[in-house]
Amino acid sequence: MADNSDMNGKREIVEPSILAGFQEFLPKEQMLFTKMLDTIRDSFERCGFIPLDTPVLEKSNVLLAKSGGDTAKQVYRFEKGDTDMAMRFDLTVPLARYVAQHYDSLVFPFRRYHIGKVYRGERPQKGRFREFYQCDIDIIGNESLGLLNEAEIVSVINGTFSALDIGEFTIMLNNRKLLGGFFASLGIGDPTEALRIVDKLDKIGGDKVREELVSIGLSGETAEKVIALTSINGRPEEVFEKIEKLELSGVNDLFDTGLEELKTVCGAIAFFGVPENRYCVDLKIARGLDYYTGTVYETKLNDYPELGSICSGGRYEDLASNYTKKKLPGVGISIGLSRLFYQLNAAGVISIDGRCTPSEVLLIPMGDTLGYTLSVTEKLRSAGIPCETYLEGGKVGKKFGYADKLGIPYAVVIGEDEVAAGTITVRDMKNGTQKTYKSPEDFIAETFKK
Amino acid sequence: MADNSDMNGKREIVEPSILAGFQEFLPKEQMLFTKMLDTIRDSFERCGFIPLDTPVLEKSNVLLAKSGGDTAKQVYRFEKGDTDMAMRFDLTVPLARYVAQHYDSLVFPFRRYHIGKVYRGERPQKGRFREFYQCDIDIIGNESLGLLNEAEIVSVINGTFSALDIGEFTIMLNNRKLLGGFFASLGIGDPTEALRIVDKLDKIGGDKVREELVSIGLSGETAEKVIALTSINGRPEEVFEKIEKLELSGVNDLFDTGLEELKTVCGAIAFFGVPENRYCVDLKIARGLDYYTGTVYETKLNDYPELGSICSGGRYEDLASNYTKKKLPGVGISIGLSRLFYQLNAAGVISIDGRCTPSEVLLIPMGDTLGYTLSVTEKLRSAGIPCETYLEGGKVGKKFGYADKLGIPYAVVIGEDEVAAGTITVRDMKNGTQKTYKSPEDFIAETFKK
Repeated sequence: MADNSDMNGKREIVEPSILAGFQEFLPKEQMLFTKMLDTIRDSFERCGFIPLDTPVLEKSNVLLAKSGGDTAKQVYRFEKGDTDMAMRFDLTVPLARYVAQHYDSLVFPFRRYHIGKVYRGERPQKGRFREFYQCDIDIIGNESLGLLNEAEIVSVINGTFSALDIGEFTIMLNNRKLLGGFFASLGIGDPTEALRIVDKLDKIGGDKVREELVSIGLSGETAEKVIALTSINGRPEEVFEKIEKLELSGVNDLFDTGLEELKTVCGAIAFFGVPENRYCVDLKIARGLDYYTGTVYETKLNDYPELGSICSGGRYEDLASNYTKKKLPGVGISIGLSRLFYQLNAAGVISIDGRCTPSEVLLIPMGDTLGYTLSVTEKLRSAGIPCETYLEGGKVGKKFGYADKLGIPYAVVIGEDEVAAGTITVRDMKNGTQKTYKSPEDFIAETFKK
Repeated sequence: MADNSDMNGKREIVEPSILAGFQEFLPKEQMLFTKMLDTIRDSFERCGFIPLDTPVLEKSNVLLAKSGGDTAKQVYRFEKGDTDMAMRFDLTVPLARYVAQHYDSLVFPFRRYHIGKVYRGERPQKGRFREFYQCDIDIIGNESLGLLNEAEIVSVINGTFSALDIGEFTIMLNNRKLLGGFFASLGIGDPTEALRIVDKLDKIGGDKVREELVSIGLSGETAEKVIALTSINGRPEEVFEKIEKLELSGVNDLFDTGLEELKTVCGAIAFFGVPENRYCVDLKIARGLDYYTGTVYETKLNDYPELGSICSGGRYEDLASNYTKKKLPGVGISIGLSRLFYQLNAAGVISIDGRCTPSEVLLIPMGDTLGYTLSVTEKLRSAGIPCETYLEGGKVGKKFGYADKLGIPYAVVIGEDEVAAGTITVRDMKNGTQKTYKSPEDFIAETFKK
């Protein structure tokens, strides 16, 4: 393959760059991104979700058992030897394959989280990446799964975005049975197109939506009915009152079941400790994927609704029908963190501060104090405090400059006087103040053990 | 692409399986593997290494700028559209590309860690995987990098494997200049073959090694000299005494420099708090990669030397010569955790216990106690204790069975009596004993806050 040596054995320089649509961070962005990943993971684990990690590459016939159309076109698929393989494009298909394959070894309900990179060869555009992180949780039942899980998911979303601390948010719920039953009652078997139009209600208003609905073949009366239902949103009790007024009860079993489920789920959410102002019902939410069968979720940032849904998912009846005849219902959500991070950064919701390293302290030995300095370093590390010793030569200004550029909060110069006295003098790099502590232990206790 | 529906629209079942040479874990293995990854990461961060995450896919001409031979053959390389791309086969080439590309934005010495998956289409064999985790640290200097960093790396290896707690280990050091100078003094410009043979000293003994050295063209006398030096290993001071006796000092500058460096590095290691029994010098260690120029490292488990080196690396002068004319010397090590985990498991060094979930507590509501039970769940989670509520129906035995199969340490049944009294009764799932606490807070304080 490539060897860039010329005839004289001298190497050519290859311009260092990454593929279009791919992304990598400088240290200060990476520190923040990693912290967000950790926060999400911690929230998922606190709710008892089990870590899962599947191969990025899978057999093409397995990974693409269901897919067609756009997804298949975007997949990174290739052959090596006589093996046809593809890179995963989401974490749901690998989950379905995993649960079907290891069915006998798993305990149900199977609560798993998976945080990993997925790959889609989409046309590159702002904030859309070809390699991006998804953070997923799912609860998979064996043959059945109780409705309460659909309420619990709301509490996981609430816990996760509270911990991420990126502003107030609202979790919006709907129910696919209610929606499906309603459209069926109007003689609309496949409401995909109508829902796509209805989704624009907030943007283009009721009149335009009515026009568009008529343009795809709905009668004016039907369009009116569609708008009347799908424009309902708000606190659950208000929504149920408005539905009541439409006198839809009994139009068909599917609608009635959906309404009943939605009432049950909304009724249970409060038990899970989710504050009232964090969730509402929005009857136009449908989610693209055709396999959702019950509750569906979207989440928006109250101050940045234009970012769209930052966490979505829903209830499905049949996770793994491509891989097993076992019925595996489940409910799950996904956070597309790469895109969200990009959006939050662009919108100024998060700000990349100057922190470029985990190090809390830079230790600077001056004169013949390396041994003592390193013993202080060890004490800090033993106390769980990330730190490092500056081992290069140069003037002390350059060494402080290193701490400053990396955003290390504290710098400690250790000279022979400090060694003799056993004290340490710590410079707070933010405000430039210095403080002398009687011992390294005192510094640790007063600064990090609060 | 693939659509497995037949003419009647019924789906065929695709056998769920993963690619040969790829690996995934069941929950109990995954829990332990994840814990080891976390331990390594924590150790790296404590030493002030910065997280880095680069794309898995890179431009082929960039990723393969240097590679030829076996590596290139093993790479997963393909075209999509008119883009020629390849999956990374290690974390070093992406680091070189990254540092060259972002040179102006980085602060040097640049200390980074990277834990991620890499891909090699090797022939599958036991314990060798085509997708595997590497855990790397490197310290990169700008134009120069002090020798003390080579000693510090030993302390990072020591800290990491102490924390992993997989048994006693020994870090073995050598110096490539010493080795290169020595072989040059014997007129052997490329010692690769000779070193490959010498590497078998422990296995096949001196006589066989001498035979093989002669068979590749060395004189008997030269072979003897090679064995005399490369068979030296032990505590640094013993090794330096033995080298003294060989009267090699002054054979050339390279040898003298190497010996001097090795003495300096060994002398500094103790400052870094590494116990004497954790490191030694072994003069036959060379490492395969041709770019090492100073200290080289291998690490073995004392009780399992047959596992080979579990952590290796070294000092190099020129990280990124393919991508920049800047001189970027560095030192680094790598832990191949996927292989190590497999080996440790096969050798019985680690044992997969029954823990399949992060959950510490399973809460089981009985009767009309869901609201109260969930409030206890919230209290536990707020205290940072992973837990979950059993939300499905069924008999209490089945619910305890769920906790038991997942290895959840504590189960709490909450009936109406408990709600009335505000107490909770906790079953220790390991020994079956029960204990009643006055309040959830008491349970938390007595069980988790030690």
